Amino acid sequence: MESLMNSAEEQQPSSPPGNSWSKQEEINKNETPKCVGGFVLVHAGAGYHSESKAKEYKHVCKRACQRAVDRLKAGALAVEAVAAALVELEDSPFTNAGMGSNLNLSGEIECDASIMDGKSLHYGAVGAISGIKNPVLVANRLLSEAQKGKLSAGRIPPCFLVGRGAHDWALGHGIPLCPSEKMATKFSLSAYKRNKRKMELAEKMDTGHKHAKKRRQSSETENGSGCLDTVGAVVVDSEGNVAAAVSSGGLAMKHPGRVGQAAHYGCGCWAENASNNPYSTAVSTSGCGEHLIRTMLARECSAALQSEDAHKALLEAMQNKFISSPFLAGEDRVLGGVIVLRCCRCVESPPSQNIQGILVEFLWSHTTESMCVGYMSAQDSKAKTHISRLPPGTVPGQCLAIEGGVCRLMSVAE
Amino acid sequence: MESLMNSAEEQQPSSPPGNSWSKQEEINKNETPKCVGGFVLVHAGAGYHSESKAKEYKHVCKRACQRAVDRLKAGALAVEAVAAALVELEDSPFTNAGMGSNLNLSGEIECDASIMDGKSLHYGAVGAISGIKNPVLVANRLLSEAQKGKLSAGRIPPCFLVGRGAHDWALGHGIPLCPSEKMATKFSLSAYKRNKRKMELAEKMDTGHKHAKKRRQSSETENGSGCLDTVGAVVVDSEGNVAAAVSSGGLAMKHPGRVGQAAHYGCGCWAENASNNPYSTAVSTSGCGEHLIRTMLARECSAALQSEDAHKALLEAMQNKFISSPFLAGEDRVLGGVIVLRCCRCVESPPSQNIQGILVEFLWSHTTESMCVGYMSAQDSKAKTHISRLPPGTVPGQCLAIEGGVCRLMSVAE
Repeated sequence: MESLMNSAEEQQPSSPPGNSWSKQEEINKNETPKCVGGFVLVHAGAGYHSESKAKEYKHVCKRACQRAVDRLKAGALAVEAVAAALVELEDSPFTNAGMGSNLNLSGEIECDASIMDGKSLHYGAVGAISGIKNPVLVANRLLSEAQKGKLSAGRIPPCFLVGRGAHDWALGHGIPLCPSEKMATKFSLSAYKRNKRKMELAEKMDTGHKHAKKRRQSSETENGSGCLDTVGAVVVDSEGNVAAAVSSGGLAMKHPGRVGQAAHYGCGCWAENASNNPYSTAVSTSGCGEHLIRTMLARECSAALQSEDAHKALLEAMQNKFISSPFLAGEDRVLGGVIVLRCCRCVESPPSQNIQGILVEFLWSHTTESMCVGYMSAQDSKAKTHISRLPPGTVPGQCLAIEGGVCRLMSVAE
Repeated sequence: MESLMNSAEEQQPSSPPGNSWSKQEEINKNETPKCVGGFVLVHAGAGYHSESKAKEYKHVCKRACQRAVDRLKAGALAVEAVAAALVELEDSPFTNAGMGSNLNLSGEIECDASIMDGKSLHYGAVGAISGIKNPVLVANRLLSEAQKGKLSAGRIPPCFLVGRGAHDWALGHGIPLCPSEKMATKFSLSAYKRNKRKMELAEKMDTGHKHAKKRRQSSETENGSGCLDTVGAVVVDSEGNVAAAVSSGGLAMKHPGRVGQAAHYGCGCWAENASNNPYSTAVSTSGCGEHLIRTMLARECSAALQSEDAHKALLEAMQNKFISSPFLAGEDRVLGGVIVLRCCRCVESPPSQNIQGILVEFLWSHTTESMCVGYMSAQDSKAKTHISRLPPGTVPGQCLAIEGGVCRLMSVAE
């Protein structure tokens, strides 16, 4: 295992100021407290983001942050704002979620998405759903319907729907449909053709090796470029409620019906308001679904973040619960990334009854080559975006990058 | 909240001897050590088991135990034995799994199942799968295929498949199919008709209450009788490896595509050999899927069982992480049950190099009216079965029963 490092300064000298954890800067620290609607952190995937597409990824992150902040400023709760951010991320043809999702083995698009509300601790998820432009809206509707209580005849409302049944439920609840063929893009179609040829070639070669009993040791990668671009977001609203969401088209050339971490409880996202715990936490993950499922990474990170030093806690969680996890023994490359936020009420000095403060610590970490993130508080005029990259010479799946910042939300009580 | 109690003695004076935890008896303690192939604990569901069907439930548990022990005696690992037990439980028309599963809202059968191997920590699951007699066999095959490593072109094998895709994968891997209409039984069909009428009536009544804005407060129960009869098993083999599995037809009248806890990682089953932990643990859950998902009960119980007193640990987990869980705040009745086993190597007195001992502690606990269990070690000539019931006058979903036993496995090293 190679040594861990904080790549913020070395790797991204041009990264936005106030972005390096080591500096412990507090964004907007010196600004006069006003009514503030919260904070959002989004990601457009842990994977590989080519320099040529960096601009597009940053743009979509920026738009997603803006959408969430618009909702927060309008008084929306964290869970509504996080859904709004996800819709923007899904709508981009460049991300592997919603429009432009990876095609599966049959050349079809099947999406996974989930959302969790830290206030009610309710959760909604859809898996392997087709023909829906914004899978996160189905997950969000499942969440809100479940909060209404039981169905007729005492039936318990579902929190997780898959496949055709999920599609029909969405239709019945007025969620906009979208013909599958319109969700594929020129890019996703050409990636499908390229992957298909690669697979056929690899299988021919495997057949040739008649004595090779241990099949499947092909070193070809499943990701031409950017095929792990699951998207996600974490939000805290002005009341201190947290929420998290995630959406994905899944691995390229996956088997039809395969459900990845984006629809797995505790694996794709997690959000939990502080109640018995000192901190509220929200987490969204990205990367290789099976690795994120088996390590239950979202929930593990959330639990880790209850210890005092958030940076140290996340670093240790990524190291011990992911890269070196006993659940992934035998995996040579453990690929994934997370965005996290945690927050707590902070004491003002001098104490004031009508000014409330929320201290938000936010971080991202990944073992993939790169991860594109954006963040914004309701005080900011625009979002900051950043493509975090592993330091040169390090091996993806075996070492990690970790970065983050701090933001203080001030609000004047009415 | 009503007080907790161990209902073994009061409720089941006729329960098998050595079954009450408080006595701390050790089954077969005085027998001469022989080569022993392990231990199995199964359940035919937490729900309501009428006296009239008690015999059938006990029979199927007995057969399931025997199937697992036969496999263990033939040298099978825990994961193979647990799958064998599940096949027997699924094949019974009396359980809500495989044959005789509950019908969904459209009158179709869609099953969930999962299996976890404590040795490799691999996991396989299927959700909302139709037309397969034994869903657990698909889950088990997913697990074993994933253990073989990557697919062609470096693709990562799936651990969770749903719906039509899962069915097609099963077909491609030689898993026996079964026309859906053959999986319905006279009982499940008549329950469907009864539930449908009940639903229509409830909806008519709801429509009548024009001013009742808070819909869905119907006090009707979704379970005529026995509709929560998810099945499961936990096994330890002679090498001390543990495994767990679970299978379910899901809630009666569920929405098509709804996936319950039986296919949710960490919720339906959990198995983890001791490595950094002092104990190996295996857990299988049953009951209301959404409650078991949101509390992630299988994994919570497994984690709790690492503390010294297994009985106390499970009781506290059921109380604090299930009945009183903040994740289920607002639920008036929290319905579920678990079977657990934990084991560790035990030191012989006097120490012997060629005799190995494994101490197995096994327990069940439920908040439902009843839970049917069976257990057997490879030393036993036949399985013991038991229907555990809540004490009279207690309220299902608000209090619990907990029982268990201890078994020492002795094996002579070759």
